[in-house]
Amino acid sequence: MANTEAQDRTSQVVAGRVGVVGLGLIGGSIARAMARGGHEVYAFDLNEDIESFAAIETTSGTLTDKLVPTCELIVLACYPKACVDWLRGHAALVSPDAIVIDTGGVKRSICEPCFAIAREAGITFVGCHPMAGTQFSGYAHSRANMFAGAPMVVCPPPEIRGVECLALVDRLEGLLAPCGFDKFTVTTPDRHDEVIAYTSQLAHVVSNAYVKSPTLALRQGFAAGSYRDLTRVARLNPTMWCELFLDDADNLSKEIGTIIDSLTQYKEALDAHDGERLIELLAEGDRIKRADEKEAEV
Amino acid sequence: MANTEAQDRTSQVVAGRVGVVGLGLIGGSIARAMARGGHEVYAFDLNEDIESFAAIETTSGTLTDKLVPTCELIVLACYPKACVDWLRGHAALVSPDAIVIDTGGVKRSICEPCFAIAREAGITFVGCHPMAGTQFSGYAHSRANMFAGAPMVVCPPPEIRGVECLALVDRLEGLLAPCGFDKFTVTTPDRHDEVIAYTSQLAHVVSNAYVKSPTLALRQGFAAGSYRDLTRVARLNPTMWCELFLDDADNLSKEIGTIIDSLTQYKEALDAHDGERLIELLAEGDRIKRADEKEAEV
Repeated sequence: MANTEAQDRTSQVVAGRVGVVGLGLIGGSIARAMARGGHEVYAFDLNEDIESFAAIETTSGTLTDKLVPTCELIVLACYPKACVDWLRGHAALVSPDAIVIDTGGVKRSICEPCFAIAREAGITFVGCHPMAGTQFSGYAHSRANMFAGAPMVVCPPPEIRGVECLALVDRLEGLLAPCGFDKFTVTTPDRHDEVIAYTSQLAHVVSNAYVKSPTLALRQGFAAGSYRDLTRVARLNPTMWCELFLDDADNLSKEIGTIIDSLTQYKEALDAHDGERLIELLAEGDRIKRADEKEAEV
Repeated sequence: MANTEAQDRTSQVVAGRVGVVGLGLIGGSIARAMARGGHEVYAFDLNEDIESFAAIETTSGTLTDKLVPTCELIVLACYPKACVDWLRGHAALVSPDAIVIDTGGVKRSICEPCFAIAREAGITFVGCHPMAGTQFSGYAHSRANMFAGAPMVVCPPPEIRGVECLALVDRLEGLLAPCGFDKFTVTTPDRHDEVIAYTSQLAHVVSNAYVKSPTLALRQGFAAGSYRDLTRVARLNPTMWCELFLDDADNLSKEIGTIIDSLTQYKEALDAHDGERLIELLAEGDRIKRADEKEAEV
């Protein structure tokens, strides 16, 4: 009977039909890009007004339980726990021919339960993290070209390997083509969370901390590009980032510790008026940054 | 006799003639902007090749001791100590009708000695800090539009007050019009150094420290805009920044201490898995940043 049900769901898939769960900045941008690319997009959002608004300009309507088996691609673009909850509640409706992805900023806490749920239900879940976004949240700020040229990091289920894994990533790249991602990087949830704690989460913490100096109040007329760049992402959605940070607390705490240690070295050199040491510290950072820029060009 | 000499120097001034000492990123950009604006520019640089190169495309030739008394505006665009040394060595040649400015990133260590030298010689020195630049150094990266729309911070001599001070700043604004500065902010060297330690120097230290995490080596494919913004100014001229930092060590050390304390609060909340505290910390930064953006718009 389970087999018949699964076959039934297979037969229902409509090629290229997309389901989007969560119409925030990321979900909204994916919905727009896919719709612009000619895909039929159905979306669900807890906020009915947003859903209605999107249905007027972007989507073909609400992603109902009845439509779930007809989607070839389902994008979970909500907070980490909500992604897992959605998949747990809907796995039995998803077609074995579909690919379900999430777009969350952490991967361990999403992929581990979602891989298990998908395995159990005989469906395919791939953890995804599009490396794009802005300091603004919500559907109102979403746009079809949000991901143009951006990298995409993907975590396929660990049991899918080799040629089978390449084929799965290829198929996903094809489905997401209208988003215009630049390059798909395959990694594990562990490695993702280790790196993202540094490249994204730490940036948000440092930026958010930067604006807390009492000297900020005096800055009018004094701020150049370096201040603007350092504080751009100080503005953030506290609830969402808190969930991401707690899910990656081990890695992020380590990175904060590392930068505190580094900053302490500059402070000590300054307090000792040790110019030689200060030049050494600055030259080291300059050298690392130049090498990093060179590598990025390759 | 001193009077006769001073009168002699007054009579030699050629209206609109500019002298630039130091053809780096800032001096080169001022030279280009002023030359484009139709001013005659003479420049001196320790590197004769740079001076010759500039003379072909930008300047009218070398700023010799003979030409110093003929300049209406003299721009000292070298490292702090070198500015003071130049003024000490040339104050007797400068016309009482001229304005001498510097462009250094610190003001106490430049203005205090330069105000004294200028007072003694009966000439006018105004400390200046154009709020512009790039992470690249040197004449090769200079450009005529470097300061277009940028704020300019000026520190007039403390004995010049009220209407006389306004007139001096007005005259300077007029002379520098071809640079296209947006707004001149008048302040004291003390206040300048206090604020700049936060808006510029701390940004360079934090960015330079940011790239020192061992996780950087794994970042390929993972870096979004927040990483790029946080690390843009990690690339810097260690010798120049070291001199600026040491001249402002008290303020910069305080700011580094402040951000270390802030970062420690996030780390403690993370280590305790205290979501409520973490949201509170993030919301505080978000609120401050939003208020700051609002104020900047006014």
